[in-house]
Amino acid sequence: MADQHPSGDTPSGRMQTWGLTVDKFLDHARRWHGNRAVVSRLPDGRLLHSNYAELHSTAKRVSAALLSYGIAPGDRVATLASNSFDHLAIWYGIMGIGAVCHTINPRLHEDQIVYVANHARGRMLFADGQYAPLLERVLPRCPAIESVVSLNEALPGGGYRPLADFIDGAGEDCAWGGFDEQTPAGLCYTSGTTGHPKGVLYSHRSNYLLALNTIVPDAFSLSARDVIMPVVPMYHANTWGLAFSAPAVGAKLVLPGPKLDGESLHNLIEREGVTFSAGVPTVWQGFIDYLRANGIVESSLRRVVIGGSACPESIMQSFEALGIEVLHAWGMTELSPVGLVASATPDVLALTRAEQRVLALKQGRPTGIDAAVMADDGQWLAHDGKSAGRLMVRGPAVIERYEGHHESALTPDGWFDTGDVATIDAFGYVRITDRVKDIIKSGGEWISSVDIENALLDHPNVALAAVVAMPHDKWGERPKLYIQLRRESNDKPEDFRRFLEGRIANWWLPDEVEIIEQIPIGATGKIDKKALRARCGGI
Amino acid sequence: MADQHPSGDTPSGRMQTWGLTVDKFLDHARRWHGNRAVVSRLPDGRLLHSNYAELHSTAKRVSAALLSYGIAPGDRVATLASNSFDHLAIWYGIMGIGAVCHTINPRLHEDQIVYVANHARGRMLFADGQYAPLLERVLPRCPAIESVVSLNEALPGGGYRPLADFIDGAGEDCAWGGFDEQTPAGLCYTSGTTGHPKGVLYSHRSNYLLALNTIVPDAFSLSARDVIMPVVPMYHANTWGLAFSAPAVGAKLVLPGPKLDGESLHNLIEREGVTFSAGVPTVWQGFIDYLRANGIVESSLRRVVIGGSACPESIMQSFEALGIEVLHAWGMTELSPVGLVASATPDVLALTRAEQRVLALKQGRPTGIDAAVMADDGQWLAHDGKSAGRLMVRGPAVIERYEGHHESALTPDGWFDTGDVATIDAFGYVRITDRVKDIIKSGGEWISSVDIENALLDHPNVALAAVVAMPHDKWGERPKLYIQLRRESNDKPEDFRRFLEGRIANWWLPDEVEIIEQIPIGATGKIDKKALRARCGGI
Repeated sequence: MADQHPSGDTPSGRMQTWGLTVDKFLDHARRWHGNRAVVSRLPDGRLLHSNYAELHSTAKRVSAALLSYGIAPGDRVATLASNSFDHLAIWYGIMGIGAVCHTINPRLHEDQIVYVANHARGRMLFADGQYAPLLERVLPRCPAIESVVSLNEALPGGGYRPLADFIDGAGEDCAWGGFDEQTPAGLCYTSGTTGHPKGVLYSHRSNYLLALNTIVPDAFSLSARDVIMPVVPMYHANTWGLAFSAPAVGAKLVLPGPKLDGESLHNLIEREGVTFSAGVPTVWQGFIDYLRANGIVESSLRRVVIGGSACPESIMQSFEALGIEVLHAWGMTELSPVGLVASATPDVLALTRAEQRVLALKQGRPTGIDAAVMADDGQWLAHDGKSAGRLMVRGPAVIERYEGHHESALTPDGWFDTGDVATIDAFGYVRITDRVKDIIKSGGEWISSVDIENALLDHPNVALAAVVAMPHDKWGERPKLYIQLRRESNDKPEDFRRFLEGRIANWWLPDEVEIIEQIPIGATGKIDKKALRARCGGI
Repeated sequence: MADQHPSGDTPSGRMQTWGLTVDKFLDHARRWHGNRAVVSRLPDGRLLHSNYAELHSTAKRVSAALLSYGIAPGDRVATLASNSFDHLAIWYGIMGIGAVCHTINPRLHEDQIVYVANHARGRMLFADGQYAPLLERVLPRCPAIESVVSLNEALPGGGYRPLADFIDGAGEDCAWGGFDEQTPAGLCYTSGTTGHPKGVLYSHRSNYLLALNTIVPDAFSLSARDVIMPVVPMYHANTWGLAFSAPAVGAKLVLPGPKLDGESLHNLIEREGVTFSAGVPTVWQGFIDYLRANGIVESSLRRVVIGGSACPESIMQSFEALGIEVLHAWGMTELSPVGLVASATPDVLALTRAEQRVLALKQGRPTGIDAAVMADDGQWLAHDGKSAGRLMVRGPAVIERYEGHHESALTPDGWFDTGDVATIDAFGYVRITDRVKDIIKSGGEWISSVDIENALLDHPNVALAAVVAMPHDKWGERPKLYIQLRRESNDKPEDFRRFLEGRIANWWLPDEVEIIEQIPIGATGKIDKKALRARCGGI
């Protein structure tokens, strides 16, 4: 803003300069919620009980040690770790001094880990001890990484420096923030099911605004009274903002470490009184299965955000039976990542319970973004719940361009094409019907692979279902269905085709059905449709 | 952010440019909550039923008409109006094109209205018809105001143009936003109990961030499911952000117009199902009195924010008996205005009900600000609930300098001195014990005028109590107590002194007590202590 008054003669009044940098969230937690617990489950199962004041202190010491090492603002520092006290302290330690925290997803294929590490050029790597065997294989191919510091426990082999040693002697008075809020803070790569992974470079500002936009009552509704457990890994899509929003509201924080099986999650939730969590459907399926197998009908959980892929109705019903609210959500790495949350409006609350259920299974209302669906001819489509088109988004935490790319990722008028196909209804609920690349184009019409898969999830013996496009001489493409069974059964492929009759349009019925032992899963827990398409001759 | 990668060879990845301008809130309400009701009570009592789509459309037409008239970005446009559909459309119409909405408080002394209008140099004035007699007196002294447009009803006298006429023929496709988010959006003057009123020039960014920071669960907790009625006037301290936060969440909005007596408020609340409101204690006292007098024990209200001056315990108890949550809050024009909200932390919820009540009567926890108390020697004081000092604040919606001032209003390290005396306790609750200028300095020790006044509010016959500093030869200053009785009674001045014995420290007991017919009230509904000090020979 100009210092001159619009009329020219006196300086203009104005408000404070107050950069939106994420270090302010942990500063706030220290000053106003310093004794609030931060609980971290170590890889060996022990619980580390700490608080925000100590997390702040450790993070400050990480900053001082990084500066001593020679890390400068703008430098990238990599992490390869599960959700823990140490990992979170390292995030803030890196970001607080204007360096860039670059998370590596350990579930990626080793070639992709090497690609990502070399592309991001992190000079240091902070890694959990459990990944030592992986590191032995990939580090020789990652020349940019000068040194490795091990978290939570020393890496075997003696070559790596433990975190306690790295920060030994470092003081707590290192300055944070004070730089431009557009300064990069984090770097996260997409899972890259097509081509190389692509990097999304989050800024302090985008992370700050993402946190505020997800804290509000119509999104995650987070408060100091919550006990927040991020099941979604810190290396996957920015923890859905929880690494920022939890200290921002001063909520007790529970970091579950690497063990995310149903029993481990349940024990931790009950022991620490977790009220809020967030994760992908497969994790919650394991949790529900554990509760059911053990006759557990109570939980301290109050709200669970489920996203990453569509939440099956059965999971939603199981949570509701426990008195736990399910918030269906959708996002992507490029959106920092939250874009839609299925919270109810008063119009929705006035509907019948069955009608509400239909809406709850949609991905939700825009949260911190604006959204629209666009036809192939570039026309905006109506909010009628039927017109399907490309889901376009924009907002303060939406990507402008990928790391290292020279061209913008946006349309000329500033929209980002999500690559998803969606409808928007009159209530403002967006329903993702498919990925653009997964949709089946049969005789000029579109068949939604997701709709067929969802119909099959009602079948008691189906563990996973995947529909992909199979080349077809007459129709161009036709659906092929792959089934992974939940248990031993006598089901034949034609039984599943018959099961679908009446549940979907007749011309959507898959031409072929194949039962396979294991449907391939990618690094972020989603079905690898590229592999299945290759299997049936598609592209 | 530089386009260059820190390492210099490729452009940096980055997130979207997305200016934090308040027009985005109303755009969002139109797109995602277009049918949500906006109800406005006209001065004659009729209800205007509309919605966000129509509010947006009217605001766009105001923008087009302003541009046609010749209003340019940076120009100031004044309003003198109660809370209504028209007034809100004018706010967005002005701000959307980068002009500055300058609210004038009609309760100010006429000399102050003239001062404010001439200082702000608004070229146009939008005014409610009810203020025509006032305008006839002040307009001749306000040469900057070129023209007046009347809201809600035509002004008598025929000289002023009705709003419908002003926007007649204006289109709805005028562009909004697209300018720097630091662009000034609003200009509001302090009540000026000492010296001239001072202007606070809000930016789009400060208003945007204020809205987000007040929407969160630990502040006002606003959602699309709320029905929000701002009782606090739009001309008083930025409506506590509700003009922005209500469309931001898509809540139904009820604008009560000029009539704020208990009966009018109750009828409107029940008719429109209001769930959330905000206002000063005196308004809520009238509401409670009306309910009690009419034996009403139910209300659609769920949460009420009370601020502007300390909320008496009796009001809090009355609301709680109705099942309505009271959120004590504190702020000032210079903070946009919200600074503290007394929402509970888990530590507080673990206390007894009586202990919680003590905390609820404090002004609350920092909300969108950082806060600290400073001793006269510049040392920061402990959060012990006892050490009283100047309340210092900083944050994204805190003033940097007053309108037209050349000097900063901040300390060298960026804190704004609120002029309030406060303590902070171990729970993070701030308690305002006095205004710095109202505190009584007796023999080198401080006496809190507010504490003595609060002790008197438990007396059934006291309507208002005010304690001010009276000059004293030996002690420098001693407290003098003024009482305004609630009803006819035989109470003598010495009875009130006796009532205070045991309730406050003995050396705090007022040297003089005087019962007066009417304690003077300033333009914002607060006791005018300056007038009382003059009355007893103070300064």
